[in-house]
Formats: sequence, structure tokens, C-alpha cells
Amino acid sequence: MRRIALGVQYVGTGWSGYQKQPDRNTVQDRLEIALEKFATVPLHTTCAGRTDAGVHAIEQVVHFDTELDRAPQSWVRGVNTFLPDSIVVRWAAEVPQDADGQDFHARFSARSRTYHYVLYNHANPSALLAGRAGWVFRPLDVERMLEAGRHLIGTHDFSAFRASGCQANTPVKDMHEVSIVRHGDIIVFTVRASAFLHHMVRNIVGSLIYVGTGRNEPGWMAEVLASRSRDVAAPTFMPDGLYFAKIEYDPKWGLPQESAPPLPWL
Amino acid sequence: MRRIALGVQYVGTGWSGYQKQPDRNTVQDRLEIALEKFATVPLHTTCAGRTDAGVHAIEQVVHFDTELDRAPQSWVRGVNTFLPDSIVVRWAAEVPQDADGQDFHARFSARSRTYHYVLYNHANPSALLAGRAGWVFRPLDVERMLEAGRHLIGTHDFSAFRASGCQANTPVKDMHEVSIVRHGDIIVFTVRASAFLHHMVRNIVGSLIYVGTGRNEPGWMAEVLASRSRDVAAPTFMPDGLYFAKIEYDPKWGLPQESAPPLPWL
Repeated sequence: MRRIALGVQYVGTGWSGYQKQPDRNTVQDRLEIALEKFATVPLHTTCAGRTDAGVHAIEQVVHFDTELDRAPQSWVRGVNTFLPDSIVVRWAAEVPQDADGQDFHARFSARSRTYHYVLYNHANPSALLAGRAGWVFRPLDVERMLEAGRHLIGTHDFSAFRASGCQANTPVKDMHEVSIVRHGDIIVFTVRASAFLHHMVRNIVGSLIYVGTGRNEPGWMAEVLASRSRDVAAPTFMPDGLYFAKIEYDPKWGLPQESAPPLPWL
Repeated sequence: MRRIALGVQYVGTGWSGYQKQPDRNTVQDRLEIALEKFATVPLHTTCAGRTDAGVHAIEQVVHFDTELDRAPQSWVRGVNTFLPDSIVVRWAAEVPQDADGQDFHARFSARSRTYHYVLYNHANPSALLAGRAGWVFRPLDVERMLEAGRHLIGTHDFSAFRASGCQANTPVKDMHEVSIVRHGDIIVFTVRASAFLHHMVRNIVGSLIYVGTGRNEPGWMAEVLASRSRDVAAPTFMPDGLYFAKIEYDPKWGLPQESAPPLPWL
């Protein structure tokens, strides 16, 4: 049996999220349908992290086991033949056990996850960015948001940013990075953590926007975090601008992950 | 009677082009439906240039006449309320007659038009750019394409790049600019001319790609142009990466056109 890892890119618009659903209108459903068409046998995939409806992935990582012996680029081209344009396999790799006899696992082998949130900050919305970026018409102060974001760095109980239905074992996560960069009218938020709770990025971005517009002071973010109460943080911000960007793994697995995303501003 | 000009941005995916059609599934149909809902009377619009199905506009310009007296931002916000997310009015301006008593006209007052073609040059397609960029998996040589493009500068009969159904009065146009810039895996073609024939940009880009892959030499472009025969040029390239970017007008009209597009790579 071989364990194969895939790098999968998708636009979340129109899909009912990543994870399999009875209506089969999800990215995982469509990916497994395409895998079965190519492999002629059902293949069951495990992903690094689920994404909600409308959320995109620059590089989701999934793994599955198979007896089939195919070259990596054969998996890429073959499976893409059966996928809609909004879902693309970018790379494939057979991942052998490590020196200790451990198997690679898309979710459990991940050291951290990186998300980008792309925001369009302009008086009027952009048709070209509809579904691809959040939109805030009030001017946003990046420096204030950066100051607020610093309170999130480190190991914290992130219950204040956790959706009620979240199934994570613990609300305690290690936040490694909260960076915010403006490129003209576009603001890109980058957050990297050991793992994320359900809606955590969108709840953090919504709260950072409250600080960016001047509605709240940067120090309010520390109060929100300390409260551990979902009622204190801002409402969940729209999914449109959220991109699951990268999953970091130990280099020993030798995954051919991509260094540069296709969108030049990320 | 007032003459109002609008800057309109749209994603062409899913629309049957710009110009009105009996099925009403076009950008102009949807824009006029929204204008009528806001103004409560029918308003007939004239555009700077029609675009085909799947072709986008960063800034299409349209004009119409009305008795209504509304502030420009009221037109923008009011009409946007009735538009789908993929069509957005970015600005509005009342345009008075000039010092000679001439009326502004979105099409006839235009001095030149600029199009961008965005191409993704990578071994595998990108889901994030599906519908938003053309895709060529063979490596492209930008220097060769630039050399080929230089043959197009100046006043020429562009019949070789003209669709059979084109309704233009003359195939002779003034080509002001053909620039090609690579940003990582993305190549942006910019063409600016007095006016364009039907399919002209897509036919030029397809022919430049023939040179970029090494299939044809740069000097072949001069032969294609001189042939005036559509059979000599490359097939019409996919619409996905084509953006109607800007229409240049005399500054005397005082249009509040945008200097920077929302996509940082353009």
C-alpha cells in the first residue's frame, strides 16, 4: 500500500465547504469522485483542515492510500481531467514512512497552518474581487490593527473567537504570526498558528476591523481574548476573502509544496 | 436633460457578453434593469466598447440622458443596490457640453482603448485564476513575444486579426502600445489602440503565444499582419484573461476615471 499526498487548490464559491456532505456539493466529494474516475476504485481522503462554504484554498493537503503505482504528474493530470475548473490538483507525491516507521498524515503531521484574509478597502465594492475578498468601505488603519494583533501572539485560550459548533479538543492554540500588509486598496492579513478553531480567523479579522475603523482601541483585543467569551468579539466576518494558504510539515516528508502562490499580492 | 457617465466594472463569467440580447443575460441588460429600478423610468445606455461573453471590464464607460437630478455618489450607491455582485458602478459624473457645444459620448469621444490580457504560465492550471486568466502550460519567452509585438505598432490594416462577423467600418487602426510583463507565473499583455476589431486582442494574444512557445519566429507576426488574412493568424484565444481596462478621453470632460485598478498586478 502506498500513501499519496496531494496539494489541492480551490475556489470555495459555490461549494458547501470542504468536508463531505449528503448533497455531495463539497470540494471533498468532487475530489473523491474525480479520484475514483481516474483510479477506477473508491479512494478515501483525509485533509489537513476543513474549510467553510465560500472559503478558498491556495494549497490544501490531503492524503489517501492506494495499491496503484502511478507517476506523480500522472495523478495530477489524470485527476484534473475529472475536476471542475474551480478545483485543481497542483502536485502529488508518494510519501514513505519516516525513519521511525511513522506514516505521514495530512492532519496530524502538520506543524502549523497559515491563512490569508484578503480585504478590499475602498468606498465602493469591486466586481473583480466579489467572492475573492472581503470588503470594508470605512478607511482602515493598519498600524492600529497590527498593535491589536500583537496581543494574540503566543499560547492562549482562543474561546472568544470560537464558533459554538466547534469540535476541537481544546481552545488553546499557539499563535505564531499575525501580520497585516496594505497593497494600495487591498489589505492582506496573514495568521499562522498550530491549529485553528472553527471560524477563528474570520472572528479575529472581524475584531481587527473593529480596531482598524476606530470603533475599538487596540487594547480591546487583549480584553476580548481574556474574556474567553464569544459574545465579546466582533461578529464572524464574511468568508469571501479567506484563503487556506499553507500547511507546514517537517521537511523529512519531502512534500513538493509550492513556495509562491499564483496571486502576486499574497 | 443631463448627460451622465458611469464607470462600470464587471466579471464577464456567466454573462452573454456586454451588449443587450433577447435573453437579457448580458451586462447591459442587468445594468439597465438596475438603472430603471433606481430611476423608476427606463434609461438607455451607450457604452464605449462591447465585450464578448467571458470578457471582464476594469472600467467600462457608459452614458445616458436623464431629467433626474441626483448626486454622483447617489447614482453609484443606488444603482449598485440593484446589481449582482459581478457588476459594480464605480463612479458617476454629470458631463456638461464642452466649450464648443459638443456632447460627451462614451464611444465617439474615446481617443483610445486599453486592454489587458492576463495569462497564467505554469505546468498545471490554477483554480484561483480559472475564468480570470488564460492558461498556457508551455514555457513562454517574453522577449520573443515583445519582438513580435513591435511589428503591430503604428497604423495598420488589422484584417488578419478580425473576426468574420466584425461590424467595424474599417480594419485600419492605430496601435499605440503592445507591452508584455512577467510577474512570476503571470504574464500581463497590455494593448492600446485607437479602437479594436472584434476578437482582435484575443487573436493577437493567440499569435503572440505561438511566438512565445517557439512555434513561430517573431518576424512571422509581420507576415500575418501583411497577409490581411484571418487564416494566417493563430486561433482566437480563450476570453478568460481579457480585461477591458481603460478608455482614454480628453481631460476636458473631467471624468473621475480611476488611476489604479483593484488587481495589484495590472
